[in-house]
Amino acid sequence: MTANSATQAPTPLPVAPRVVALAGGVGGARLADGLAQVLPPENLTIIVNTGDDFEHLGLYICPDVDTVCYTLAGLSNPATGWGRADETWQALESLGALGGPTWFRLGDRDLGLHLERTRRLRMGQSLSLVTQHFCRAMGIGAAVLPMSDDATPTWVYTIEGDLPFQEYFVRHQCQPKVTGFRFEGAERARPSPGVLEALDRADLVVICPSNPWVSIDPILAIPGIRPAVQARRVVAVSPIIGGQTVKGPAGKMFLELGITPSALAVAEHYAELLTGFVLDRVDENLAEQIQALKVQTLATDTIMKTPLDRARLAKEVVEFGLRLSHSS
Amino acid sequence: MTANSATQAPTPLPVAPRVVALAGGVGGARLADGLAQVLPPENLTIIVNTGDDFEHLGLYICPDVDTVCYTLAGLSNPATGWGRADETWQALESLGALGGPTWFRLGDRDLGLHLERTRRLRMGQSLSLVTQHFCRAMGIGAAVLPMSDDATPTWVYTIEGDLPFQEYFVRHQCQPKVTGFRFEGAERARPSPGVLEALDRADLVVICPSNPWVSIDPILAIPGIRPAVQARRVVAVSPIIGGQTVKGPAGKMFLELGITPSALAVAEHYAELLTGFVLDRVDENLAEQIQALKVQTLATDTIMKTPLDRARLAKEVVEFGLRLSHSS
Repeated sequence: MTANSATQAPTPLPVAPRVVALAGGVGGARLADGLAQVLPPENLTIIVNTGDDFEHLGLYICPDVDTVCYTLAGLSNPATGWGRADETWQALESLGALGGPTWFRLGDRDLGLHLERTRRLRMGQSLSLVTQHFCRAMGIGAAVLPMSDDATPTWVYTIEGDLPFQEYFVRHQCQPKVTGFRFEGAERARPSPGVLEALDRADLVVICPSNPWVSIDPILAIPGIRPAVQARRVVAVSPIIGGQTVKGPAGKMFLELGITPSALAVAEHYAELLTGFVLDRVDENLAEQIQALKVQTLATDTIMKTPLDRARLAKEVVEFGLRLSHSS
Repeated sequence: MTANSATQAPTPLPVAPRVVALAGGVGGARLADGLAQVLPPENLTIIVNTGDDFEHLGLYICPDVDTVCYTLAGLSNPATGWGRADETWQALESLGALGGPTWFRLGDRDLGLHLERTRRLRMGQSLSLVTQHFCRAMGIGAAVLPMSDDATPTWVYTIEGDLPFQEYFVRHQCQPKVTGFRFEGAERARPSPGVLEALDRADLVVICPSNPWVSIDPILAIPGIRPAVQARRVVAVSPIIGGQTVKGPAGKMFLELGITPSALAVAEHYAELLTGFVLDRVDENLAEQIQALKVQTLATDTIMKTPLDRARLAKEVVEFGLRLSHSS
């Protein structure tokens, strides 16, 4: 049995580098959890997309922040990746019986969190302060930072019209053909406290295997974040494996925007930011083309089925990243 | 076996009188349910106290309207009288784990209703319209009318300071000694649509065995309602039996305001409105003093343990009321 075996947790990284992860969605949350398993909590900052955030039933809902927090706290639903384990649906059922909208699936336990976040926001607390409080309550040691305390709702332009992200993603189940995106108000938004500081101190920035268009680009759209990322050693992990996304509409979006979905397309999307790129073994044939972008590559198993997969991948990503010479 | 036996539902009233009930709290909801069992739905209007309504966790909560609706729909918790049967508490538990306020017990199913009501109110629907919609969804035939669509929050004056009703009632569990009440904004509130019309058409007004101070007085404080009630034949049912309240702080409030709690005290409280008064058999010794107020009395079993008790009492109350000569 080796330390890399998927049946045993990897040993912690010998020297503790300071790592900042950019994350959104289920894949992002899973790699973030892997990083949390192999790094000391004070060395990990996770900057999370808030472009998906929206108000629904009077509640302020932050799907990506919650997915990261639930995943790191071990509270997430292992089947869906989003929402909570052992969830019940009484409130939504009762609301539906009264003719209320049930297209956005809010479980009872999840609802408790949204009620409390909304209450605190209405009291004047910032989203990052509320998130910090929730992380403490959930026993999360790493810093989870919403990318901004300012609302920057993602709009999805489609051939059926412009849709707020959750309408596109949940209500229309990503059916309408995408023509573009807008991160409303991003140009006036500020990174939340600690975001630029964490990037400035980072030995490595990891772009998680999240949707480039609607999870990572919204983060990079906040003024100040892209240049701060670009100044560091940056490794991205491909969310596209064998031309397909593990989960979510990233592949479909690439296609609809006229780009063949592939690990190469992801590397090209981020190219100017990247020092290194991690792709799945099944895509090893693309490594040479990616290297031609002046990006070093690591091919490994990138599908994260278990918490141990996450930790193993996280360790490989960090070790790979720290080996890279940083020329930018 | 007679038609009045508690083991068999009473036969419907032979001629269908038009009845308006004033109700609040669990006792009020139970007699309202009895009336709904013995009257054709189109002949029953229940005007419900909204002085207890409050905003909590961003939700607009109407405890008395909900207790009436849940009771009439057969959805209420038979043990507590408030809240829903087969309720779960996941959302509140989750909220509590994050440090949120749990003093007001919101069950998951109940929460679904509050979310939907709040959503509809924010869309601009009136409380009475939302209530009408909920009644239809719950299969309630009688008209349930909030006393007003305007907020008139009840304040309880206590020796420890002035408290919003739910703070007094739930958070402080009716501990602080009461010195008085205020129905904030009542003087500017209007009866909700249909309230005065129902009163004008009523053959009988029933004041349910609710708390006179904080369930019935708030209704009577809405301009126009008291004179409209006074113009009709009115029967009140005593919420005080043998000097005690079946449920809630009415007895304690009488005492703290310097009045010995009794069926007589209740009759005196309402005296100028009453044609008749229903008291429990255990209080039959007070009948003469009540009659001295020029109020006719009926002594019967007034404790409602089962839905059949409710129907039996409702039938007796209505038959008694219709027998009375109306002199005012």
